[in-house]
Amino acid sequence: MIIASTSTIHGSGYLEYLLPTLEIHFKGCDEILFIPYARPGGISHDDYTTTVRSAFAKINKTVKGLHEFANPMEAIQNAKGIFTGGGNTFLLVTQLYQNKVMEVLVKVVENGTPYLGSSAGSNITGLTMQTTNDMPIIYPPSFKTLGLIPFNLNPHYLDADLQSKHMGETRETRIKEFHAFNDSPVLGLREGSWLEVSGSTILLKGNLSARLFNQNKAPEELAPETDLAFLGK
Amino acid sequence: MIIASTSTIHGSGYLEYLLPTLEIHFKGCDEILFIPYARPGGISHDDYTTTVRSAFAKINKTVKGLHEFANPMEAIQNAKGIFTGGGNTFLLVTQLYQNKVMEVLVKVVENGTPYLGSSAGSNITGLTMQTTNDMPIIYPPSFKTLGLIPFNLNPHYLDADLQSKHMGETRETRIKEFHAFNDSPVLGLREGSWLEVSGSTILLKGNLSARLFNQNKAPEELAPETDLAFLGK
Repeated sequence: MIIASTSTIHGSGYLEYLLPTLEIHFKGCDEILFIPYARPGGISHDDYTTTVRSAFAKINKTVKGLHEFANPMEAIQNAKGIFTGGGNTFLLVTQLYQNKVMEVLVKVVENGTPYLGSSAGSNITGLTMQTTNDMPIIYPPSFKTLGLIPFNLNPHYLDADLQSKHMGETRETRIKEFHAFNDSPVLGLREGSWLEVSGSTILLKGNLSARLFNQNKAPEELAPETDLAFLGK
Repeated sequence: MIIASTSTIHGSGYLEYLLPTLEIHFKGCDEILFIPYARPGGISHDDYTTTVRSAFAKINKTVKGLHEFANPMEAIQNAKGIFTGGGNTFLLVTQLYQNKVMEVLVKVVENGTPYLGSSAGSNITGLTMQTTNDMPIIYPPSFKTLGLIPFNLNPHYLDADLQSKHMGETRETRIKEFHAFNDSPVLGLREGSWLEVSGSTILLKGNLSARLFNQNKAPEELAPETDLAFLGK
């Protein structure tokens, strides 16, 4: 799995910074199955798939949207490679449950189908979606997600702006609130960072450190190339 | 009702900017019933109540926390004035349902008990909590809230920072995603603004404009002293 904080970094095209990595990750897959359920900004499944298709065309992959299939479960079973895009995590999780594809997703990824997630599509690889930044625009049947990594993610992790006069909660405060009720570790993944998960290793990639939050502990900065597998032990 | 975007504005003490308003609003109530369920930053009910107690002491009101009562429903029925503080909206709503006080809150406020909400405590006066900024740290039985005003709120409303290199969604994008699935109007209430609800009028107070989002319409800026009652028609 490639689990990216964001699809897009500032000043660059959609998925552009990841394309060299994706070329290796999806080596041998001509066609990528795209899960467009998160619908960023409310765009349609078709429009979202078109954006993704243009990006993958640059590394000679074709793309099909999961919404184009009559049987989503079967489509996931047959996929050579899977990408779940960002948008709204509540919507994504609701749709995954409604289309009954949570379990099959876990199964195929565990069996080796290469997976890419960005933002909401990364969030769902964690234990629960409870550290998303998104608005609860729809009520999902559960907050439980794929559990393909042994912790939770906070994508688009943002350090507090010490100059700000805004009194809304910082990201760190929100994660502290999560830890008042939940003991899973939370990894704050900054834009431009991603995790490369292969077998039992979970490597932090990109140039930035990531911020690890454990219940009742001070947050820690983890350097690139750290293996996060220890969080599952 | 006084429905405030934030308890605290930058550079000022807890509730300080609102005290002159609250002195009038809670005229005749010596004791305020405080609902501490939202627990900002995960602090305890007792600690939160202590903070609120100090603020209200400045206008000679005593404060009791709802958690101090064996029967929360009865405490709300008997309250002379009610304040629900900010924190995490998911937690607040979960606790309100678990303690079975949603209905009684609607009843007493409709019957004239003066109510103050800030942030999460304001959010719940709307139709649903679906335009909160908070993290889903706990799974509430429902997103439905008090419905004391005929629209939804987004407290701590924040304009997009056009200089930012951050690629996470702006507040406006998030509200647009809400409107892909829901047709309730959403009022983005900036810090320092509040609503004064009395009878059938819903006046915007403070020095700032508020941003109104309607489904399939361009957002509008509403000037202070606008009556928002038209949103219920």
